Amino acid sequence: MNIKVNSRIAQAAPSATLAITAKANALKKQGIDVVSFAAGEPDFDTPQSIKNAAIEAINKGFTKYTPSIGTVELREEIVKKFKKDNNLTYEVSQIAVSCGAKHSIFNAIQVLVDTGDEVIIPTPCWVSYPEMVKLAGATPKYLATTAKANFKITSEQLKQAVNNKTRLLILNSPSNPTGMVYTRQELEAIAEICVKNSIFVISDEIYEKLIYDTKEYTSIASLGKEIYDLTVTINGVSKTYSMTGWRIGYLGADKKIVSYINNFQDHSTSNPTSISQYATLQALREPESAVELMRNEFKIRRDLMMRELDKIPQISYIKPDGAFYMFCDVSKLGLAMDVATRMLNDVNVALIPGEGFMAPSMVRLSFATSQERIKEGIKRIAQWVEKNYNK
Amino acid sequence: MNIKVNSRIAQAAPSATLAITAKANALKKQGIDVVSFAAGEPDFDTPQSIKNAAIEAINKGFTKYTPSIGTVELREEIVKKFKKDNNLTYEVSQIAVSCGAKHSIFNAIQVLVDTGDEVIIPTPCWVSYPEMVKLAGATPKYLATTAKANFKITSEQLKQAVNNKTRLLILNSPSNPTGMVYTRQELEAIAEICVKNSIFVISDEIYEKLIYDTKEYTSIASLGKEIYDLTVTINGVSKTYSMTGWRIGYLGADKKIVSYINNFQDHSTSNPTSISQYATLQALREPESAVELMRNEFKIRRDLMMRELDKIPQISYIKPDGAFYMFCDVSKLGLAMDVATRMLNDVNVALIPGEGFMAPSMVRLSFATSQERIKEGIKRIAQWVEKNYNK
Repeated sequence: MNIKVNSRIAQAAPSATLAITAKANALKKQGIDVVSFAAGEPDFDTPQSIKNAAIEAINKGFTKYTPSIGTVELREEIVKKFKKDNNLTYEVSQIAVSCGAKHSIFNAIQVLVDTGDEVIIPTPCWVSYPEMVKLAGATPKYLATTAKANFKITSEQLKQAVNNKTRLLILNSPSNPTGMVYTRQELEAIAEICVKNSIFVISDEIYEKLIYDTKEYTSIASLGKEIYDLTVTINGVSKTYSMTGWRIGYLGADKKIVSYINNFQDHSTSNPTSISQYATLQALREPESAVELMRNEFKIRRDLMMRELDKIPQISYIKPDGAFYMFCDVSKLGLAMDVATRMLNDVNVALIPGEGFMAPSMVRLSFATSQERIKEGIKRIAQWVEKNYNK
Repeated sequence: MNIKVNSRIAQAAPSATLAITAKANALKKQGIDVVSFAAGEPDFDTPQSIKNAAIEAINKGFTKYTPSIGTVELREEIVKKFKKDNNLTYEVSQIAVSCGAKHSIFNAIQVLVDTGDEVIIPTPCWVSYPEMVKLAGATPKYLATTAKANFKITSEQLKQAVNNKTRLLILNSPSNPTGMVYTRQELEAIAEICVKNSIFVISDEIYEKLIYDTKEYTSIASLGKEIYDLTVTINGVSKTYSMTGWRIGYLGADKKIVSYINNFQDHSTSNPTSISQYATLQALREPESAVELMRNEFKIRRDLMMRELDKIPQISYIKPDGAFYMFCDVSKLGLAMDVATRMLNDVNVALIPGEGFMAPSMVRLSFATSQERIKEGIKRIAQWVEKNYNK
């Protein structure tokens, strides 16, 4: 049967990382010892106190519909979180809970942009941003950054890119895949351009708690009333509390934007899982020490990975400020997809080629895996490079 | 701030039932004894065996990402369900699991239709179908049914409505709000028109297990190879296993349609909650007797509600074959929204006005509430009608 599908969906690319991951899984199934640096989620278990809350929810029958954008109780807790961590003052009516931060971003983009609009996406970028923009009928405008500029856009660059079709800028700090974190000063300069041109900002802050060399983190919406009004602040519990499978993300934004998101979510998914909402309430009430444990371990692994990678002169990287990825330049070895494919076949190391991040000379290595596996994996990569490129 | 939002989202109507429900909740909070016939979900608890499975999933750390359209294990179980209950042969690659049947329907509509396409929706209809169609950029074409025709469309009616823009028909049997179930013969006649005109069918079968006067249930996709290829069969565990808050729906369809749905879901929500997927595996393995218990109780309540309503001559209804709603004609009392509002204010009975179902002379009374409450609520309605209309 010849099926014509929706043109916006037809042009959305399948996740470019899937081929490598599928191949890696197939090798594992054959019993082959694959070292995977592909993970996009923490390898820790969800903390026991959060699990206990979920079990309590199940036992007391909290298994029914809730309001589509989440219980009032959970939204109140999110209001407190934004105030405490981000110096952001939202009311409950400005909060929407969804089935993961991805879903929050998707909903916000679908509401904010329309056919003919342009959306500025700094690259390298997370794989789904461009596709979400296309699904809304709008056009992604890529703003390429360089390793020299620490993979961050400048306000000057942004100014040049803006035209009268520009409706939205998508910021992601700490960034997946680059690990870069924007400073307060950098954000101030960006905010100024956005305010001047009435450009909405989606600020994806899902990796906020995973930063390693500083305690300071700035949410762009906290920089003033005007940028606050234009910004949709995205967060969730997946990365911070190792709750990826629970599917809870949330956002804070202007009340009117949230009312449209509510309406959209009401007709597309209804509420996120009631049990997960209840567990999230507990997650947001966890003491900072629970997160500190994970952050410390990630930092140790990051530093280990840098030391090991430093032994391979053909591979370079910028030290990541946050998230749990090393974003490595492999242009001396070839195109990323080819390098990743050969590395998986030859020495059974799985990493994510950069094509999907709009960065075909880069690969992403996740350090959400144990120190032993990091050592083993980088050793294999070093041997493979030595064998193939130092002949 | 003056916010211009996406035109497709701007025109989607907020759920018309919300005003009454919000008002009813406000009255309850004031301590007022409201009898609610508004529920769209079973009032039973989720069965213990299913809860136990979820707790097992949590304890063993099944709290990570899964494939976006569900685990292979769950999709295999759904393949078995479709074979056993619906005489439908699907492969795993033809199954997609989502965050509730609503989400499955939304995804299927977004993939199947495009700007300019027409989608036939028999009315009275569930509130979200028209909005989902508009969100895809397509146009709903309403096909009105009458109480005389048992709220079902005929093949003759369908034939008349089809034109060269018609891409999709949305069928819902048993129907929310009317409770009607299409017979095999009726579906055969409808299928013939769809096949002849290459019209896709979304068959929303979420109330499949809740039918009361017959054991026979027919899935339209089971009627032949050609209609099978054109049909997306929707189901889920919310209504059958009292799992509304868990958010698991699923669909079976042509492999290519499912691959687009996979892609779309991958960029919009990712996987439904891992724990809910695990619980659903158990739900689908439950013995038929678990469902039988609920069905019997619903049948008793339906019969009770009919007996009580029969005492009010100004209100008429068609005996519902399935689901858990009495769909009542209140045209002798006024317009539905007005009747519902006054009834709530005067005697504190909450019911859903039909405007949202494209049926402004009807109201929906859910019998997902206890026999005592049904008696009390209908008694209040009877007194209210007596007082206001028999003067």
